[in-house]
Amino acid sequence: MAQKWVYLFREGSATMRDTLGGKGAGLAEMTRAGLPVPPGFTITTEACNAYYDDGKQFPEGMWDQALEALKDVEKDIEKTFGDKQNPLLVSVRSGAKFSMPGMMDTVLNLGLNDETIQGIITLSGNERFAYDAYRRFIQMYGNVVLNIKKDKFDEVFDEFKHKTGAKLDTDLTAEALKEIVPAFKALVQSETGNPFPEAPIEQLRGAIEAVFASWNNDRAIYYRQVNKISDALGTAVNIQSMVFGNLGEDSGTGVAFTRNPSTGENKLYGEYLPNAQGEDVVAGIRTPHPISDLEKDENFPDVYNQFHEIAQRLEKHYKDVQDMEFTIEKGRLFMLQTRSGKRTGPAAVKIAVDMLNEGLIDEKTTLQRVPPGDLDQLLHPMIDPRQTDNTKESYVRPITTGLPASPGAAIGKVVFTAEDAEAQGALGEKVILVRKETSPEDLRGMVAAQGILTAFGGMTSHAAVVARGMGKSCVAGAGALQINEAGRYLSVGDLRINEGDYITLNGSAGTVYAGKLDVIAPELSDDFNTIMKLADKYRRLRVRANADTPHDAAEAIRFGAEGIGLCRTEHMFFEGDRITAVREMIVADTVEERKAALAKILPYQKEDFIGIFKAMQGFPVTIRTLDPPLHEFLPHESAQIEELAKDLGVSADKLKARVESLKEANPMLGFRGCRLGILYPEITEMQARAIFRAAKEVAAEGIKVEPEIMIPLVSDLNELSRQRDIIERVALEEGVKEAGVAYKIGTMIELPRAALVANKIAQAAEFFSFGTNDLTQTTFGLSRDDAGKFLPLYVEQKILKDDPFQALDREGVGELMKIATERGRSVRPDLKVGICGEHGGEPSSVEFCHQIGLNYVSCSPFRLPIARLSAAQAALVSTERDR
Amino acid sequence: MAQKWVYLFREGSATMRDTLGGKGAGLAEMTRAGLPVPPGFTITTEACNAYYDDGKQFPEGMWDQALEALKDVEKDIEKTFGDKQNPLLVSVRSGAKFSMPGMMDTVLNLGLNDETIQGIITLSGNERFAYDAYRRFIQMYGNVVLNIKKDKFDEVFDEFKHKTGAKLDTDLTAEALKEIVPAFKALVQSETGNPFPEAPIEQLRGAIEAVFASWNNDRAIYYRQVNKISDALGTAVNIQSMVFGNLGEDSGTGVAFTRNPSTGENKLYGEYLPNAQGEDVVAGIRTPHPISDLEKDENFPDVYNQFHEIAQRLEKHYKDVQDMEFTIEKGRLFMLQTRSGKRTGPAAVKIAVDMLNEGLIDEKTTLQRVPPGDLDQLLHPMIDPRQTDNTKESYVRPITTGLPASPGAAIGKVVFTAEDAEAQGALGEKVILVRKETSPEDLRGMVAAQGILTAFGGMTSHAAVVARGMGKSCVAGAGALQINEAGRYLSVGDLRINEGDYITLNGSAGTVYAGKLDVIAPELSDDFNTIMKLADKYRRLRVRANADTPHDAAEAIRFGAEGIGLCRTEHMFFEGDRITAVREMIVADTVEERKAALAKILPYQKEDFIGIFKAMQGFPVTIRTLDPPLHEFLPHESAQIEELAKDLGVSADKLKARVESLKEANPMLGFRGCRLGILYPEITEMQARAIFRAAKEVAAEGIKVEPEIMIPLVSDLNELSRQRDIIERVALEEGVKEAGVAYKIGTMIELPRAALVANKIAQAAEFFSFGTNDLTQTTFGLSRDDAGKFLPLYVEQKILKDDPFQALDREGVGELMKIATERGRSVRPDLKVGICGEHGGEPSSVEFCHQIGLNYVSCSPFRLPIARLSAAQAALVSTERDR
Repeated sequence: MAQKWVYLFREGSATMRDTLGGKGAGLAEMTRAGLPVPPGFTITTEACNAYYDDGKQFPEGMWDQALEALKDVEKDIEKTFGDKQNPLLVSVRSGAKFSMPGMMDTVLNLGLNDETIQGIITLSGNERFAYDAYRRFIQMYGNVVLNIKKDKFDEVFDEFKHKTGAKLDTDLTAEALKEIVPAFKALVQSETGNPFPEAPIEQLRGAIEAVFASWNNDRAIYYRQVNKISDALGTAVNIQSMVFGNLGEDSGTGVAFTRNPSTGENKLYGEYLPNAQGEDVVAGIRTPHPISDLEKDENFPDVYNQFHEIAQRLEKHYKDVQDMEFTIEKGRLFMLQTRSGKRTGPAAVKIAVDMLNEGLIDEKTTLQRVPPGDLDQLLHPMIDPRQTDNTKESYVRPITTGLPASPGAAIGKVVFTAEDAEAQGALGEKVILVRKETSPEDLRGMVAAQGILTAFGGMTSHAAVVARGMGKSCVAGAGALQINEAGRYLSVGDLRINEGDYITLNGSAGTVYAGKLDVIAPELSDDFNTIMKLADKYRRLRVRANADTPHDAAEAIRFGAEGIGLCRTEHMFFEGDRITAVREMIVADTVEERKAALAKILPYQKEDFIGIFKAMQGFPVTIRTLDPPLHEFLPHESAQIEELAKDLGVSADKLKARVESLKEANPMLGFRGCRLGILYPEITEMQARAIFRAAKEVAAEGIKVEPEIMIPLVSDLNELSRQRDIIERVALEEGVKEAGVAYKIGTMIELPRAALVANKIAQAAEFFSFGTNDLTQTTFGLSRDDAGKFLPLYVEQKILKDDPFQALDREGVGELMKIATERGRSVRPDLKVGICGEHGGEPSSVEFCHQIGLNYVSCSPFRLPIARLSAAQAALVSTERDR
Repeated sequence: MAQKWVYLFREGSATMRDTLGGKGAGLAEMTRAGLPVPPGFTITTEACNAYYDDGKQFPEGMWDQALEALKDVEKDIEKTFGDKQNPLLVSVRSGAKFSMPGMMDTVLNLGLNDETIQGIITLSGNERFAYDAYRRFIQMYGNVVLNIKKDKFDEVFDEFKHKTGAKLDTDLTAEALKEIVPAFKALVQSETGNPFPEAPIEQLRGAIEAVFASWNNDRAIYYRQVNKISDALGTAVNIQSMVFGNLGEDSGTGVAFTRNPSTGENKLYGEYLPNAQGEDVVAGIRTPHPISDLEKDENFPDVYNQFHEIAQRLEKHYKDVQDMEFTIEKGRLFMLQTRSGKRTGPAAVKIAVDMLNEGLIDEKTTLQRVPPGDLDQLLHPMIDPRQTDNTKESYVRPITTGLPASPGAAIGKVVFTAEDAEAQGALGEKVILVRKETSPEDLRGMVAAQGILTAFGGMTSHAAVVARGMGKSCVAGAGALQINEAGRYLSVGDLRINEGDYITLNGSAGTVYAGKLDVIAPELSDDFNTIMKLADKYRRLRVRANADTPHDAAEAIRFGAEGIGLCRTEHMFFEGDRITAVREMIVADTVEERKAALAKILPYQKEDFIGIFKAMQGFPVTIRTLDPPLHEFLPHESAQIEELAKDLGVSADKLKARVESLKEANPMLGFRGCRLGILYPEITEMQARAIFRAAKEVAAEGIKVEPEIMIPLVSDLNELSRQRDIIERVALEEGVKEAGVAYKIGTMIELPRAALVANKIAQAAEFFSFGTNDLTQTTFGLSRDDAGKFLPLYVEQKILKDDPFQALDREGVGELMKIATERGRSVRPDLKVGICGEHGGEPSSVEFCHQIGLNYVSCSPFRLPIARLSAAQAALVSTERDR
């Protein structure tokens, strides 16, 4: 017996997402729950995979099963597919396990031909409706199944509008629409060389194949790549009997969320369009009404209550926000889809905490409901409220206002095409993508842009949905906006803004500003704090911050840091006058001269450390000794060198020679890190002295202080031992123990060799901290500064799953981390091990750090919440696995 | 009971080198064999170590044991230490396990004071001799034990010469010498603040402490570092009763080797000085007579025969060349030392093969007698014989001739100080160090120089001994040479050569030439071939060569290559016109333009490969696809760019922009290796096509051909798979299989990640080749181009045992090699694994490659003999260990 490839809606359930896809499982579950769902069936994802495995052939039995299911639907709805009098029309939709906007669009009204149209005319009593449905069907089928460009149909369509003097689509008469049908068919014939398929069965077969094919179109592949979705999942195909929202004023269609996906507010949220098909809402061509209006809409008595009750039921059933599509056909409500609703970061936090409070979900589920990366949105800078408060003098008037489609502030230069956004983004430019409306083709440009501004479309338009998913600021449907793509400018009234000019978006208010506004960090909500407290309750990993100044340290504490994992001393070298002393130190000819220069730097460093120690309130502070190549502290232009020479009182030639001698072929692999402290031990000595003196002063004030001195770029035990000897000697000289200050000495593990000989290095190290930025560079032999030429292609072509500078490479870099941790602890079981590379704030990297048993992760203060939540989720996952 | 710290010579033996040091063990063994050795005793190396462990205190019992041993010696020789009438005088010498010229000089005549001098006068009947011995003793003791500079004594001495009108030392009368004694003592008093120690026992204690202290003087530490000798060995102290070579014309002293240490000739070789002490020979102050003259020397009847017989006995006993010191006191021969003789590479080869033929040693011992690195000397370039043949028109007359102290040709710029040699050598200059004579202080300068030229000293002078040890060309004792160090020039008659001018040395003939002469590779001797055949018999590792041209390939075959391990295709890109096509390829805007340029390169590459395949006579040839960053092929100066732009028919601005865009922050970690072939697959395609077409053509001629295509800088299986796909496709297109050509595809392992994921990479690789140059750079995070600033210090301070670019770092890089080999073979047991970094020709690295089970090593053709012998020695060691 052949495998079961086809499931009637009533045969499936929510648990069958893998097989039926998200949409199919939702339809099945709603059907089982007795909700009003137009009958239909789903062809499984397994069928899609089998289709590809068999060289693009329907698997054995699939087609027969589909025809049988179709019979069942015919019986159910009492219509017949292809029947002249009482024809069944169906929609055909793709539906993968995870929602994928990059995939095939829907084909509606399938089953129409020159014969069945008559039945529709009779049944609807509306010839215009019938022919409009017919021409839409040919258009959609032609585009989606037969790959004819939309423009071609639009040209024909516009010609007819012009010919008949119609301005809007709705101005076209039934007669005109009737004429368009053969014109569209002629277009199909000329574009494909074949006539438009009249037989409904043939139409169905073509549409199913087109869905299967769409699994591997470029957009879908790109979408999966960006969203880390496996290529092996396949898509299901949903065939559902049509209901019509465009059968008159008592019909309509809409989409809605059980809660506000932008703010999380617990209130039905969505839009509907009377007398329209579903695609009209998503496409953003007509501006829809808010769902709340439905309650008072005389054309739809009681529909709102019915929908509201269904929405409640669905949310309780799924215990999560539902994103629903519905159609009202002549006053009767049909549910066409329900799925877990995408939401912004702030909404995710509010919804999770609200549902926890409502008793709908438990603490662990609450934590798992917030994607850690989305917290970024809560932490995004926002426009300084004084500039948005019109009672203040500092108020800045927006140039226009649209819908607040995705929250947060965004500043960037105006670009008008996705290509430009991508190209300039690649160059490091911050851009705002300005479009009339966006489409899936614009995806890459949207990824590259800081924010998106559209002139058309609503809160559920493509631009709005995608931007929210990305946590990017978006203002949608700013209708006053005139976009002149060819002229490369936009205008609002008399105001003209050229390509390349700066604008600022406030996605939370829907406002658009000319120029750059001041932005500030947002306040953290109580819900956010609840999530953070929960995360802290469940995580095992400690979190620290990378912070170089007392200000950063204070920020770190605010975001929940339990210490500083990386304090880069060299950043302090650039402040104020001290750079002069640093430069004196570099050009010194003798140890004595160098020591004299260092003596000038010491008091500055000491003061910096005092500030940081105090800010950290007794938490440990890991201070890295001088790391960057010395040439980074010197000017490189002739004029600047000459000026500096004068300041330092040395000859310009000598200084130039010094600058020259410090140049390196590969500075990343050059004279830096502990190599500086080995050649110039007096530098390490000065830094140790500054740290210890600061620690003593702070301790004398009764404040606990826990300095951890970290030696960078170590490749061998001997390097660390030599540096350690210096520090220990200074500690003795400074009487650190007597002052009651406990300190630790440890090292960065940022070279492959350090990881491999960790069992030796650990003999002299009380802690390890993985410098995964450099470790990634050396493990891959990949310069971050130069990888731009090929790394994006590597990720795009899936040579590498991820950019290893963003998500930690577990196989290579991670393997070295595992080796280093194991070997280090083999000789020092209580070795403290952390990470201070940028991966320390990236969710999947934090998960890995948890898995291999690190003690802490350290990241920028701003990413601490992400780290805390990621650490909690990692702990929950591993607990589940342990069970 | 206290440990035994002191051994009389008759108590020790040759097997006690660890305890007695080399010299002590030799003296003991000779004593046991009944040879005429002045009696004495040895304080052990353990005593030295205990001395340091106890905070520079003689270990318990040592001094008492020494005094007891001294009594035994007194009894033996019937003299008494410190006795007025019949005083025993002793020499005190350091003696570590391995001979160390950097250590303490000898103190002779110890035991002399104002009382015992009377006994010596009486016994010798020679007052002048006695006072000369006395003033020498104060001088040596003052210098060596009390650390007073030699110059100070020389000043006093010269003053006396001046005062008395003496020109030579020998012109000084007994009276004058007698006066010098109190003057020297006054100098000691004023320099040290203490009187010269009169008590012989106090002198002895001081000398023993000085020997212990000399173990850790700077020169000794440096020597151990250069020669990889452990600091933990310690030195022994030899106290031996004095015999005098300067008691008149029937006395003398000399040094000799049982065979010629320069050529290996089986003939007693050495020098003697009548009426002299041993130090006079080594110091090179007077030019000694060849040992052969001793036979006919009327002053020494029968001494030669006696010595010759002893030499023969010693060599048979030790089964190796002996380096002996002797003294003749009033016609009586005394042996003062015997040890294994240092020898040049050519001598080592000849002696080993001769001794094998003489049945003295077996094959395995023969192989172990030649340090592989020393083979370099046999392979050194020599001066084109036409320039040294005075019957030829091309004959070049030497400017002067000295002793042929160490063979081989050397060309360099003249420098006059070790410091200059070191400084210029560090800048990459080739220099010849020219000195009146050298001393251990000059060691670093000698290391840095290409060759050494001295005006004084013989074949066993410091310069000669050290140069031979280093395998460096040396001409010693070129007496016609006038060196004006202050004026920075040298002259021979009227000819003047300034610092910085080139000279050429022929260390094999002792000739010196102005300017640069032509040099050629030497012929390989039969003995050399015997060693090579033996090596091939015992080694398990295969050896291949790195060769990029048919010429190199032929050289490789000549030196015994069994394949090419690395053929760098890019070197071919620079030849002739083809660089233009390469540049066209680089500046191409489109794939089509690039393909057009590549099509021009293809025929060149094909011809190159044909030549190499033919030269390799059926051995496998590993060809690496394009590796270096593209900017290496473009000019960087404005004028050159403009010219090239004209040639290529593109605008200079465009070309400049292209050059600019290819610049990299860290080119070592940049757009190179397989990254090129991934971005520009057409390059890999062209190269594969050229290889396959060449292979087919050669195969069609009936010549076996085995191409192995190697993808560089791989970090992930996907990279290799993509490149492999291209190559396999081209192979299909070219019908390679049908042509009967078997090929392999593999990869370089030169990034840490590649080693770590070797189990994946091996799925697409039939072979691995370790690129240990880059692997060392990435594992250590160390740019070879930039490490000059700190790596020498690292080696000097023993932070790293070796320069990891010279000797493979086993702990880090080697660990990755082990991991890669194990993981690779875990999925592909027959994986062929080799090495093609420069370590492939370095003995300790080859040993490691053997140990971890590689299949082959590949190195430059010139280093193949070293690799073959190293591989054999590694195999012998591991066989011994297995037993």
